Amino acid sequence: MYLSKLFIPITKDLPTEAKIKSHQLMLRTGMIKQSSAGIYSWLPLGYKIMKKIEQIVREEQNSIGAQEMLMPTIQSSEIWKESGRYDDYGEEMLRIQDRQGREMLYGPTNEELITDVFRSSVKSYKSLPQILYHIQWKFRDEIRPRFGVMRCKEFYMKDAYSFDLSDEEAKKSYNKMFYSYLKTFNRLDLKAIPMAADTGPIGGDLSHEFVILAETGESKIYADKNIFEIDPDRYKFDDLSLKKMREDFTRIYAVTDEKFKKEDFNKFVKKEDQITTKGIEVGHIFYFSDKYSKPMNCLIDDKDGKKTSVKMGSYGIGVSRLVGAIIEAKYNNDVMKWPKSISPFDVVIIPSISKNNKENLHKAEKIYQELKKQNIDALLDDVDENMSNKFKKHDLIGVPYQIIIGSKSVADNFEFKELNSQSEILSLEKIKLKLKN
Amino acid sequence: MYLSKLFIPITKDLPTEAKIKSHQLMLRTGMIKQSSAGIYSWLPLGYKIMKKIEQIVREEQNSIGAQEMLMPTIQSSEIWKESGRYDDYGEEMLRIQDRQGREMLYGPTNEELITDVFRSSVKSYKSLPQILYHIQWKFRDEIRPRFGVMRCKEFYMKDAYSFDLSDEEAKKSYNKMFYSYLKTFNRLDLKAIPMAADTGPIGGDLSHEFVILAETGESKIYADKNIFEIDPDRYKFDDLSLKKMREDFTRIYAVTDEKFKKEDFNKFVKKEDQITTKGIEVGHIFYFSDKYSKPMNCLIDDKDGKKTSVKMGSYGIGVSRLVGAIIEAKYNNDVMKWPKSISPFDVVIIPSISKNNKENLHKAEKIYQELKKQNIDALLDDVDENMSNKFKKHDLIGVPYQIIIGSKSVADNFEFKELNSQSEILSLEKIKLKLKN
Repeated sequence: MYLSKLFIPITKDLPTEAKIKSHQLMLRTGMIKQSSAGIYSWLPLGYKIMKKIEQIVREEQNSIGAQEMLMPTIQSSEIWKESGRYDDYGEEMLRIQDRQGREMLYGPTNEELITDVFRSSVKSYKSLPQILYHIQWKFRDEIRPRFGVMRCKEFYMKDAYSFDLSDEEAKKSYNKMFYSYLKTFNRLDLKAIPMAADTGPIGGDLSHEFVILAETGESKIYADKNIFEIDPDRYKFDDLSLKKMREDFTRIYAVTDEKFKKEDFNKFVKKEDQITTKGIEVGHIFYFSDKYSKPMNCLIDDKDGKKTSVKMGSYGIGVSRLVGAIIEAKYNNDVMKWPKSISPFDVVIIPSISKNNKENLHKAEKIYQELKKQNIDALLDDVDENMSNKFKKHDLIGVPYQIIIGSKSVADNFEFKELNSQSEILSLEKIKLKLKN
Repeated sequence: MYLSKLFIPITKDLPTEAKIKSHQLMLRTGMIKQSSAGIYSWLPLGYKIMKKIEQIVREEQNSIGAQEMLMPTIQSSEIWKESGRYDDYGEEMLRIQDRQGREMLYGPTNEELITDVFRSSVKSYKSLPQILYHIQWKFRDEIRPRFGVMRCKEFYMKDAYSFDLSDEEAKKSYNKMFYSYLKTFNRLDLKAIPMAADTGPIGGDLSHEFVILAETGESKIYADKNIFEIDPDRYKFDDLSLKKMREDFTRIYAVTDEKFKKEDFNKFVKKEDQITTKGIEVGHIFYFSDKYSKPMNCLIDDKDGKKTSVKMGSYGIGVSRLVGAIIEAKYNNDVMKWPKSISPFDVVIIPSISKNNKENLHKAEKIYQELKKQNIDALLDDVDENMSNKFKKHDLIGVPYQIIIGSKSVADNFEFKELNSQSEILSLEKIKLKLKN
């Protein structure tokens, strides 16, 4: 893609309405545009990044055997009355009357709807276990939406639901999801801590929040740094091993300030292992057994032909929120560097161009074509602008690798730079190898 | 995927609420489940097919240089008041009041919102032409939703918007989109006819509907069969050639019954070339110049620095509707055969299984693993059920190729069948070759 063709409305001014750095960066680099309070359009740059995150989330859901489907955004109030949550949910639920006066709502979450799908489809224990998920827009009518995509009204979320015959079986599903979350955040190059959590309005008796470290995060975190030594890849994908993995994680001290007690911290964590930092919640998993299946009469025949309420859990990842959270974690000292796995482009080619000399631009175009043949997705900055402005701009766009075609590039060797590192002079062949790794 | 694991609630009974065959088939094969009147959940089988259609639509949009983005589902009423459509749109627009009493709506289309994005981002003719598109859920509060996904309330649609400096330039964008639509429907293995159309509530002075042939379609069609001889691949992707392509198409007689005149049909079309059939609208493109940009003050500096309203067109494809439309076109004599490009699986393996003999199942599993290695996405029917029931079921699920492991399969040769054709006995190597072509 040529930068001059890309629909990327970059602004030079710091947007005054944005209070946190992710919101500022997303507006400045034209990733999003607010359409009304707490509701955004995703412009091509932001959209591309969000879709890459979505795809990683999807692959890690599929890899534990979860099946993708899609529930609608608009739901009938009836199922929410069955579960008893219609009156409880409060004003954050966007309530709608259709033209025939029926009470509808824009789904803030989908426990009721998936239970309704399941009860009409599955009758026998033979079809269990089952995990279904979808990635869909949801709505919360926040009274004070703020912080850009971090606390907005219309947001994009992956939510999964597990169905099992017994509490014991259900915990195996829970552990699989726990594992899939760790793998997902690893692929996003994030340090994520699973933390035992309160269950809140979803309910239930087992719950973990996944919190990523970011100095500007919303919650304070106290943890034993050994938690980062646990590598989910060391565990086999079987029930026993995954059980051990969750135990290994939960044995290590890690709490948010709500649960923090100084004496415990000092008692359980060696001084040199103590870390105190901030974090952002990006995922939350719940096990709530028959909280929804019981009132909604979602019954399964067990092995003896006896009917029993199916046992359920739900598992969320905020996909649009993650875009902001990753910026909070990775944007430091005026430089944003996207993790390679979700960078909008693999590399940006930055030629020094002047009105009378297009030689560097032609070189850049040749390199662009070469990379394209190798399926390397390059951005070519063909804008006529001085190099210092270009570098400032690309520090914000955040493509992690740059090929700079200026005075240091001679013959077939080019200046190659990884953001936040020194540049080096490399042949195009070596550059290709670096980009492909 | 093993069929016993797939979340596919197949029903044997013909659903009484479904009046047309696509609606019937989608309910019977568990592709969708109604959640409330005119609103559906897409279960894994239906979801997978819809996603494949979406991906083809996306690729053909990208290939003409359109850029993907995403606008929200909930819009503010303000921009609709600016364009003047807020009061005109009628009761099909789902109007919403948020908790603070603001007038919002669930977008039925996005001309206003994209104009708002564009006017705040682009100021100069240098950034033109530009085509932006998104694939997003939309809502129309149909008073009598019916025919399943063909006329529902919440529907999935690709809508693109072009921006040009002059009417003349804008028609080049229009022709590009015309070309991309023909390519899209070709890849979906549909016979699509572009027909000059009235512009309706979108407005404007140039418009084409794309109608696919299906005997159960909603509108009657009178056409010269030579229209199917025009191959869009024969035209180069440049402005002159695409102009000629559109002219070649529009020169040939093809109208819906609204515009049909018997004397014209007989005058312009040879008797032996006349076809009278039915069709379903699956796409609609509009050129409406400054209908929205003028009232919404979306101005561009032209080459002389003079401000002028940007010239716009809009281009829709009903992605969820296409799923139903393709069934209407391809489901005949109780056999559904999905086009290869969007089939939910590349092939289904059907072993004959009995309680005491699992040999065929084991053979099937070996073949499944072999195909997996070649990235062939197979469905294995491991359900313990007699073969005649299995065949009936797979006639509905519609995977176009079958490997049947029964009495005709000996040693390493297997019965291979393309739906609606005779089966043949082939080695696995030959089967792989057939599936990969």
